[in-house]
Amino acid sequence: MGPGDKATEADLDNAFELGKLIAQQGWILLTGGRNVGVMDAASRGTKSADGLTIGILPGNHPQGVSEAVDIAIFTDMGNARNNINVLSSHVVIACGMGAGTASEVALGVKNRKPVILLTNDNSSKSFFRQLAPENVYLAESAANAITTTQTILNLKSASQFP
Amino acid sequence: MGPGDKATEADLDNAFELGKLIAQQGWILLTGGRNVGVMDAASRGTKSADGLTIGILPGNHPQGVSEAVDIAIFTDMGNARNNINVLSSHVVIACGMGAGTASEVALGVKNRKPVILLTNDNSSKSFFRQLAPENVYLAESAANAITTTQTILNLKSASQFP
Amino acid sequence: MGPGDKATEADLDNAFELGKLIAQQGWILLTGGRNVGVMDAASRGTKSADGLTIGILPGNHPQGVSEAVDIAIFTDMGNARNNINVLSSHVVIACGMGAGTASEVALGVKNRKPVILLTNDNSSKSFFRQLAPENVYLAESAANAITTTQTILNLKSASQFP
Amino acid sequence: MGPGDKATEADLDNAFELGKLIAQQGWILLTGGRNVGVMDAASRGTKSADGLTIGILPGNHPQGVSEAVDIAIFTDMGNARNNINVLSSHVVIACGMGAGTASEVALGVKNRKPVILLTNDNSSKSFFRQLAPENVYLAESAANAITTTQTILNLKSASQFP
Repeated sequence: MGPGDKATEADLDNAFELGKLIAQQGWILLTGGRNVGVMDAASRGTKSADGLTIGILPGNHPQGVSEAVDIAIFTDMGNARNNINVLSSHVVIACGMGAGTASEVALGVKNRKPVILLTNDNSSKSFFRQLAPENVYLAESAANAITTTQTILNLKSASQFP
Repeated sequence: MGPGDKATEADLDNAFELGKLIAQQGWILLTGGRNVGVMDAASRGTKSADGLTIGILPGNHPQGVSEAVDIAIFTDMGNARNNINVLSSHVVIACGMGAGTASEVALGVKNRKPVILLTNDNSSKSFFRQLAPENVYLAESAANAITTTQTILNLKSASQFP
Repeated sequence: MGPGDKATEADLDNAFELGKLIAQQGWILLTGGRNVGVMDAASRGTKSADGLTIGILPGNHPQGVSEAVDIAIFTDMGNARNNINVLSSHVVIACGMGAGTASEVALGVKNRKPVILLTNDNSSKSFFRQLAPENVYLAESAANAITTTQTILNLKSASQFP
Repeated sequence: MGPGDKATEADLDNAFELGKLIAQQGWILLTGGRNVGVMDAASRGTKSADGLTIGILPGNHPQGVSEAVDIAIFTDMGNARNNINVLSSHVVIACGMGAGTASEVALGVKNRKPVILLTNDNSSKSFFRQLAPENVYLAESAANAITTTQTILNLKSASQFP
């Protein structure tokens, strides 16, 4: 998860790298599916390593869907689809920060999902770590976020998913 | 799409066959994802032919998900997820009939999706054909529904999807 | 509930009358909230008798809301809001028929709500009565639909609502 | 908006006062509708001053609805209903802080709604003020939040709502 139009260059680089590493782990990438920002960069990263990408779209129409999305789920429910994004993920990685991303982190915490923050935004790290110290992890790099995800997945038994 | 607990034996046979034929076409199966009725039978049919299955679940928890679902999308929005089912499908095939299935056929028509009815329920065929003669097709068998789907897909250009 | 752009003159007359009678009963009217068809006519009928009107809108913006809606709930979830319409109603009255209305009748039945059909469309009456004989009622007029609603409400204890 | 089970005594006092003041302004109170925490306290405050209360519920059943809710809207969409809460409000007041509340503040900002924070939680104030300085306001008391709301409403023309 991460910003669309307002993603920074660092966010986009991290997202592409995350997408690639996710594919290399044999995992499936799930994003918000649009053809902008972190969603698009992560999806392209996953495709660069021949992985599978799912996009949970806010609209009802293929216009604006990332070309790197293999499976487009059209919700037609705007930002409320953010709840589906986190519910359908085993681990949520927030790459960068913005209002939509903050809602996904908060909904992830609310739904007791593990959430990893990969961002330079210190006030979001401070806030979300305080909000849910047991659910929110900090990562310094895409590779670090993947290692943390592995640790989380190993700690959980299959029956506890999602 | 089709009934859960109230599916008939004929519905289940048709659903399994549909799932298998969908996989053999190289298409992806999308269902409501639960481990009962037409959703489960179609998903098992697709897996029997090594196809890919997506389940759009009404709940937020893996309990009750069909074992034949590869990718589970948890919506936590109950029957409102039926709208996502039809919006995310290129063609909707209703296998059998019931209240949930009727809502999906109606939402399919509302969203201008092609809908194929595979059922012995004459009053539903009569009603939906009258409601939307240009969108609702009738099929006599699973194989017939697949042929009709091919015809529909050929008539549409890629840009018109979904 | 009832058609928007495709409502007939009879549907609109029935809807206005229903809205007025609902207000005279001291009940609250809940519709899809748009400024067209049955939603608008029923809301105007209720306001003509100084009743309270709620509109559950498919969009996220006041444009297109009926001027006769007192309380606008913006869902931004398109036709999936039809599920909220029926879940939030004690009794669903379908005035006229169309794809959206059919989805509401079906979702009403799926959610075990009493549904009253007020329409000349015989194939819908035949289909829905067969689908759920214990939940679907037929009415010949707006006044008749109100009488049927009274009977339904009297049969239920307050604790069984909605 | 505000925490359910985890609301502090100060949150509950503020919520009751907010509800009362909202009624005294002739405004309508919209909350998440459950019978706990800030939702319940605010609704009781509004009823103490004979105001009108709306509850947008996460579930599909009257169990768990605050007795101080006049109009219950049943969404059956869990935490995704938080998006409806903010979309249907002219101004969002977050009373206290928690994961659900944070998602509502973030969704409020995402949907360009004015959001007022009434909380002692400094890290949330710091984060959300930085995220959207033009949309997020801070209040020191319930009375202060009402004054800020008046200012916001006066700045907007009726046509700009919601």
